[in-house]
Amino acid sequence: MPRTLAVCYYPEKWPQTLWPEDARRMVEAGIGRVRIGEFAWARLEPEPEHLVFDWLDRAIAVLADAGLEIVLSTPTAAPPIWMLDRHPDMLALDETGRPRGFGSRRHYCFSHLGYRAEAVRMARLLGERYGMHPGVVAWQIDNEYGCHQTAMSYSAAAREGFRHWLAERYGDIRQLNEVWGNVFWSMEYRRFNEIDLPNGAVTEANPAHWLAFRHYTSDQVVAFNRAQAEVLRPLCPGRTLIHNYMGLETGFDHFTVGVDLDAASWDAYPLGMLEDRVPADTTHRHRYRRQGDPDFQAFHHDLYRAVGRGRWWVMELQPGPVNWAPYNPAPLPGMTRLWALEAFAHGAETVCWFRWRQAPFGQEQMHAGLLRPDDRPAPGLAEVRLTADDLKVLARMAPDLATVRGDVALLVDYPSLWAWEIQPQGAGFNGFTLLFEAYRALRRRSLSIDIVPTASDSLAGYRCVLALGLYTWTDAARRLLGTTDGPVLLGLRTGSKTPDFAIPSRLPPDCPDWLDIAVAFVESLRPDGGPALAGGGRIERWIETIEAGPQVETLLQTTEGAPVLLRQDRFHYLAGWPDATGFDGVLNQVIPPQPGDLPPLPTDIRTRRLGPLHVVLNYGPESVALTPWLGPRDWIIGSQILPPAGVGVFLTRRASRTGRNPSVPATSTHAGPRQTL
Amino acid sequence: MPRTLAVCYYPEKWPQTLWPEDARRMVEAGIGRVRIGEFAWARLEPEPEHLVFDWLDRAIAVLADAGLEIVLSTPTAAPPIWMLDRHPDMLALDETGRPRGFGSRRHYCFSHLGYRAEAVRMARLLGERYGMHPGVVAWQIDNEYGCHQTAMSYSAAAREGFRHWLAERYGDIRQLNEVWGNVFWSMEYRRFNEIDLPNGAVTEANPAHWLAFRHYTSDQVVAFNRAQAEVLRPLCPGRTLIHNYMGLETGFDHFTVGVDLDAASWDAYPLGMLEDRVPADTTHRHRYRRQGDPDFQAFHHDLYRAVGRGRWWVMELQPGPVNWAPYNPAPLPGMTRLWALEAFAHGAETVCWFRWRQAPFGQEQMHAGLLRPDDRPAPGLAEVRLTADDLKVLARMAPDLATVRGDVALLVDYPSLWAWEIQPQGAGFNGFTLLFEAYRALRRRSLSIDIVPTASDSLAGYRCVLALGLYTWTDAARRLLGTTDGPVLLGLRTGSKTPDFAIPSRLPPDCPDWLDIAVAFVESLRPDGGPALAGGGRIERWIETIEAGPQVETLLQTTEGAPVLLRQDRFHYLAGWPDATGFDGVLNQVIPPQPGDLPPLPTDIRTRRLGPLHVVLNYGPESVALTPWLGPRDWIIGSQILPPAGVGVFLTRRASRTGRNPSVPATSTHAGPRQTL
Amino acid sequence: MPRTLAVCYYPEKWPQTLWPEDARRMVEAGIGRVRIGEFAWARLEPEPEHLVFDWLDRAIAVLADAGLEIVLSTPTAAPPIWMLDRHPDMLALDETGRPRGFGSRRHYCFSHLGYRAEAVRMARLLGERYGMHPGVVAWQIDNEYGCHQTAMSYSAAAREGFRHWLAERYGDIRQLNEVWGNVFWSMEYRRFNEIDLPNGAVTEANPAHWLAFRHYTSDQVVAFNRAQAEVLRPLCPGRTLIHNYMGLETGFDHFTVGVDLDAASWDAYPLGMLEDRVPADTTHRHRYRRQGDPDFQAFHHDLYRAVGRGRWWVMELQPGPVNWAPYNPAPLPGMTRLWALEAFAHGAETVCWFRWRQAPFGQEQMHAGLLRPDDRPAPGLAEVRLTADDLKVLARMAPDLATVRGDVALLVDYPSLWAWEIQPQGAGFNGFTLLFEAYRALRRRSLSIDIVPTASDSLAGYRCVLALGLYTWTDAARRLLGTTDGPVLLGLRTGSKTPDFAIPSRLPPDCPDWLDIAVAFVESLRPDGGPALAGGGRIERWIETIEAGPQVETLLQTTEGAPVLLRQDRFHYLAGWPDATGFDGVLNQVIPPQPGDLPPLPTDIRTRRLGPLHVVLNYGPESVALTPWLGPRDWIIGSQILPPAGVGVFLTRRASRTGRNPSVPATSTHAGPRQTL
Repeated sequence: MPRTLAVCYYPEKWPQTLWPEDARRMVEAGIGRVRIGEFAWARLEPEPEHLVFDWLDRAIAVLADAGLEIVLSTPTAAPPIWMLDRHPDMLALDETGRPRGFGSRRHYCFSHLGYRAEAVRMARLLGERYGMHPGVVAWQIDNEYGCHQTAMSYSAAAREGFRHWLAERYGDIRQLNEVWGNVFWSMEYRRFNEIDLPNGAVTEANPAHWLAFRHYTSDQVVAFNRAQAEVLRPLCPGRTLIHNYMGLETGFDHFTVGVDLDAASWDAYPLGMLEDRVPADTTHRHRYRRQGDPDFQAFHHDLYRAVGRGRWWVMELQPGPVNWAPYNPAPLPGMTRLWALEAFAHGAETVCWFRWRQAPFGQEQMHAGLLRPDDRPAPGLAEVRLTADDLKVLARMAPDLATVRGDVALLVDYPSLWAWEIQPQGAGFNGFTLLFEAYRALRRRSLSIDIVPTASDSLAGYRCVLALGLYTWTDAARRLLGTTDGPVLLGLRTGSKTPDFAIPSRLPPDCPDWLDIAVAFVESLRPDGGPALAGGGRIERWIETIEAGPQVETLLQTTEGAPVLLRQDRFHYLAGWPDATGFDGVLNQVIPPQPGDLPPLPTDIRTRRLGPLHVVLNYGPESVALTPWLGPRDWIIGSQILPPAGVGVFLTRRASRTGRNPSVPATSTHAGPRQTL
Repeated sequence: MPRTLAVCYYPEKWPQTLWPEDARRMVEAGIGRVRIGEFAWARLEPEPEHLVFDWLDRAIAVLADAGLEIVLSTPTAAPPIWMLDRHPDMLALDETGRPRGFGSRRHYCFSHLGYRAEAVRMARLLGERYGMHPGVVAWQIDNEYGCHQTAMSYSAAAREGFRHWLAERYGDIRQLNEVWGNVFWSMEYRRFNEIDLPNGAVTEANPAHWLAFRHYTSDQVVAFNRAQAEVLRPLCPGRTLIHNYMGLETGFDHFTVGVDLDAASWDAYPLGMLEDRVPADTTHRHRYRRQGDPDFQAFHHDLYRAVGRGRWWVMELQPGPVNWAPYNPAPLPGMTRLWALEAFAHGAETVCWFRWRQAPFGQEQMHAGLLRPDDRPAPGLAEVRLTADDLKVLARMAPDLATVRGDVALLVDYPSLWAWEIQPQGAGFNGFTLLFEAYRALRRRSLSIDIVPTASDSLAGYRCVLALGLYTWTDAARRLLGTTDGPVLLGLRTGSKTPDFAIPSRLPPDCPDWLDIAVAFVESLRPDGGPALAGGGRIERWIETIEAGPQVETLLQTTEGAPVLLRQDRFHYLAGWPDATGFDGVLNQVIPPQPGDLPPLPTDIRTRRLGPLHVVLNYGPESVALTPWLGPRDWIIGSQILPPAGVGVFLTRRASRTGRNPSVPATSTHAGPRQTL
Repeated sequence: MPRTLAVCYYPEKWPQTLWPEDARRMVEAGIGRVRIGEFAWARLEPEPEHLVFDWLDRAIAVLADAGLEIVLSTPTAAPPIWMLDRHPDMLALDETGRPRGFGSRRHYCFSHLGYRAEAVRMARLLGERYGMHPGVVAWQIDNEYGCHQTAMSYSAAAREGFRHWLAERYGDIRQLNEVWGNVFWSMEYRRFNEIDLPNGAVTEANPAHWLAFRHYTSDQVVAFNRAQAEVLRPLCPGRTLIHNYMGLETGFDHFTVGVDLDAASWDAYPLGMLEDRVPADTTHRHRYRRQGDPDFQAFHHDLYRAVGRGRWWVMELQPGPVNWAPYNPAPLPGMTRLWALEAFAHGAETVCWFRWRQAPFGQEQMHAGLLRPDDRPAPGLAEVRLTADDLKVLARMAPDLATVRGDVALLVDYPSLWAWEIQPQGAGFNGFTLLFEAYRALRRRSLSIDIVPTASDSLAGYRCVLALGLYTWTDAARRLLGTTDGPVLLGLRTGSKTPDFAIPSRLPPDCPDWLDIAVAFVESLRPDGGPALAGGGRIERWIETIEAGPQVETLLQTTEGAPVLLRQDRFHYLAGWPDATGFDGVLNQVIPPQPGDLPPLPTDIRTRRLGPLHVVLNYGPESVALTPWLGPRDWIIGSQILPPAGVGVFLTRRASRTGRNPSVPATSTHAGPRQTL
């Protein structure tokens, strides 16, 4: 499949006379696709039922005539002001009960069926008019579900919907009382319609109550999206249905939403997200302030490849400073090209910059585009052109640019992430952070990673499967892990809870006969309170006390002798949260190095296989000479000396002798060789 | 009086078939009492007026048959969902006006008379049925008044009640305007029903307004408790009426509530409270993270001994990790025994662990019990057994285990603590912290302490009386201090305000002719801003500028010459907040050492006299050899080398020569000798 | 004009029998004026329309008979409780929608026309009764507009008023949609009455929406004040109409309010404000904890001199510890005199201490007065007497004590400050802080400063004009800068936005042909993320990337070569936020030293010219010997050795040889010479 560059464009914001020249300049920059329409409802239907499509007809015509493929969005993330006349109660309510009002976007409540019908109506109108247009190749439904904490709403519609959902799920109120354990504090209900949303209780509500509400909330996002997908699919045959998700968004189950779409995409703002959501300390944020976190994008690329069942895009990519993070510096020159090429290395079909021209008005007027507000090129535009050239080089060597199957599989389960948020048990103890630190550790080993949902069919063929932090445990997850044929790493709360948030009767990890262990109790630790590991590194945040049968072997322990990594046959269990050094030791036990592995690379270097190629990225602010690690290679882009923000691509077929410089021992620590630079 | 071990049990949460075995295992562990019922309302009355007592009949029978004494609780802290149908306005409102809803517990407003009547109705039903049951030896009313900030409520019922209360207290609105000083910002009212609760004002409300509301709030807790006590007392002759208070809870006057009960108790969670309420810095929290603060439990033991007028229990004791603090580690092995023995050393009649078996569901599913959810023993159970053995040893030496009268008295006054919260005058300036730091300093001197309310009859016979931070001054308090016959230490705001929160006309400390001083003005200080003391240590947080008559002597001053400790005859005044070193210097002046005093002990060691015994506790994570401080002793439990979490008990009669090692000078600082370990 | 000392007095709080003695003691202390009445409404009109003036008649008579001039206030900042019966909807609402209730002060909403009429009614009644009274020389309208964040209100009255205001300003809703850019997220309105206040949106509202609301809010403060001024002016001929503003209050445009008054004043609480609003780090706060920030008062003196168009007072001055800051220490002895003399050095007509006698009741009972609650002198009183003596000395040398025109002009523009608050673009990036740091840098050069509004007529004659951070740009501001005839320093967002909060089409700074530059893009920086400057110092917080034409010269740049200070002819542009060292370098370029300049003085010393005099202040806690910097001088107050809190005044006519000690080079850094002390 050809890989394409794209850009987000808002014809409604610019004089029509500008459109042809904009389209021409896009094509000139190597852009092949253009996303439009996602905030245009007020212009498409300025009064209820009064539809104005002519301007969009013309915009599509102009863009298509210039040779651009169009991604058309349904504008349902930002309904016009008159929608409140029709549905005064459509607003979401925040956790304190305040309405989240008109005046920005995403003010609708996912539970409001009246608004859902309006959204479907608009999707149908657009689908009927443009579904068969030859220039329209894909449809984006809505925009950034969950952004600004909008998945959850505490409205009357949500309460009503939740009660029905509970009645359907549990059938009998006694069943709900039983599995939630409502006897605990005299919380037993007599009827489903006595159950409120869990946000108003004096102190914590029952975690089972919260988990059910999180499931319900996710189901409403799924249903909202599905309703549009179902109306669009028959109207837009052969077009890609897609949604643009966010980074570190856990408000709903993306895998379930993804089932109703053809592909996934996400909005990648590496600098903004480094400052406002990446789990990292100040030193790390300082070092990467102009490059973004070196793993955060890759994690989401792999995540959304899974959500899209192999098909995925970057729908919005940062081209310069953004406006919304605590600090908004400019990317280091070269970074927006690096980010784009990294996405392609992880299998992206399309990488789409946000936005074409910086708008001089509105909430995002300080958000850079590829053009400045005065129509002159912003720094990002030249990098788009370079990326287009790179794509041609890559396509010569690897025509379809398909990504490879990962070396290892990392399981991600949204209900477990909700459960972590509901009951962290220790300040700062967070499921996403755990998965992300495991991901970082795998990347330090230069492994390529597949993120896999627990609803998958098989995990056969992976060098290793990580099933960490799967807090709430399902039969499906257990069945899936039964399909593995290599080492499996469980642990850190995996199997801690039933799907209704209770401790399983035979104690965690409540797994089949893989592992004869029980978690006797768990402890959350002060930031400074964890024990050292016998093999180096420390335990932080969390430790579990394990009872193990005789066939269970201890692979790693604390200096005081508490087991941390246990093994029975190919199943391993991790009983504490290791720091980076500790995580490296764990992975060395579970995934022994094998011939063909790259050695640990310098701190700022990341690499991923892409068909017959290896893509190497320098996320650091200094040049890095790679020869000591990689030896001579056939470089088709870049070279062994990577400048800051530099990208190199070499043919994976190995050099005649090991690429490892004899002076760099295989066991050298991650950071070690940097000191010789 | 025999001392008993006990446990909290929830028969309604477990199959009836488990009950006999549970009872058998309790007895086997040395447990003699079991507390039940405090969250069972929904099971006792699942529909209004539909009472279901059969299960409780059986539970009581099973437990009593096993030889256990039963503490039965009224379940009024968690009324069932249907109560909201009967009394939709019974919910408390928080300071922002939001209702504190159903779904956890303590959702009722103390001012709601309708709910108060329902609580009395349930107490009567229980009393009628079980009051004369021979197995029921005590009644707990409600559960943890004030927990989760539930004493105060800003409901319509509270506003209405407050207006009546004000009318009764002040009689004439002009009187209220006068004593509150409402002329200040044109705040004068014309009628009592114009007065709102103090939570809604633009900026701070009149502190007199707040103080009245705090008094009113406390009175509602008193009235709520009294209403149940009055109905239970005649129905349950000879049984102990008791309530389980919390640690560091200042929402109401515990002494006044206590008047209506036979005994007090409190819920001691040393690790949870270390992290979520003990005033301490990070270093301290780190050192004691698995042991709990070494003074916090003792302070509350002494406090609740006073609240119970000599009779007190620990009603809930932490047996393992809890679920609700920011960090939840496991206790160091031995600690739950240490905590129990410390309670007995301070005179507890009963120490009751919370809970028997960890519940696998509900809000506290991560809270350890003596049994794990899979019914196997958790680590705490073995320590219960050890404690039972210790109790037998102690009883041999000191049959009634009565605690001794304290060496010194520390006055505690809830209205003054409210006043501190209302008008701290400096960030972090807090009345409880002051009392607690004074308590710590007294413990560094190995003195036994009595906490005493200002409503007591006499303070004669104490080596010293501390009356620090008695911000609002009453005639009763002045009269009580007149009964002293030894040194008295006033200061740090003592006598600063009239009971209606005004500065007394002749300036603080507004005392009789004990001390010819006036506080000219006060200063709150930056954390880094206090002056050094001439004798060592520094002033922190607060300093007062004193005018003194000629008969007043200055005992301590800052290096710049400002008086800090003043004396006239036996009355002393402390004019600044000293750090620990400074506090030691103050106490050395006010309470000169005398023969028989123990020397200052190592940092982690605490001791208390118990009849003819001395109980010595090692709160530290390392072993401590006590000989250099104590010399040879007759140890009946433990020995002179105390392991971490170790408890030693020796006969108080002193060894033939001073226990002090000649190499440890009597004036050695508290921390000094530790360096030689 | 003679300069006067004054005091705030509340006769309604004290027995009438005290009044004559109070008045006598005031006069004895050198006080000539007394402010009364600003919180007395409940005593003047205890029931609606029931007026009680007799006590005020007597109070005015007593004070006037003693020779005191009276400043009478309208009591409209604190209406009585019955006002809520008449106007239940008069309360302001906070940003979350909660009413800001009765019980302290400033609870009215500026948009409420019913309350505005009541305020006018009361002003008229007072004016009619006392307007011609010979003892009443000035009228204060209301009290501290905006204090406690009370300028903004989100009430129904505000929403209604805002809609009308918008309709008037924009005429056609399409015009509003157009200039606000409401197309951005489908935010286009159909009617003005669809527009809500900007506080309820899901995420940020349109900054144009916020800026309009800030303008609207400011206009309501102006209208509220004007309504009283208009009724008082004809009733009080020849009397000074005045208001007492606060420090660092940006809720409304003070210059516009000031147009309706004769003079400005402000309430100077140097210690309280150091802790609760001065932008400074902990080290700075610690050093000046008993002296106050050494520039904060001067900045506001100069600001309010501009607001009063030359005529200004200090209406409230701190005499001892206050009650409302996080920490409330006592001033270093001498400071309240220093603060008063500094005010006169900046041209104050009257300096008025707050308050005469400390009130023993109400919210401010811990706020010091000149008398203690027990009627004895507080430490401040003696300093008032000293100040009175100083004034006599000064008046001998410089009879009218008029302040001089400043060396440099610093432009201040409230709408720009609002825009900074609405869109900081970087955490901690704040317009006031920028102006204040520029002011500090000018003071390090010992320059005298005029603060100037953009609505002024001319800027001719200044050695330099600073127009930094003028975020929103108006034709008037551009026109005013065209009147300059010396160096002008623009920069740091100046000209970034149109008055409707859009980026100007030709990019910032959008100025006439003064400077051929464009701001290509801007970056907000992490606290630790800025580049070093080639000439010393660093850039912090913010940097702009500039495109410049050939006639533009770069005067300063980063070590990486990015231009930071650019110049075209006499117009300069500052493209990054320099630290203190960097700011000094910038000013040295823009304002070259000239003969007669004082050298940089020691860190704690501040100076200002006052007619033929130089006033020198020591804000430090140590003595400073000034000879190395100033050489011999004719000291008329103090001497060359200034004690802590010391004030010296010398005749400006220079000594025969340069005052600079040859060993102190002219280019020595600010802090250097201190090390030789």
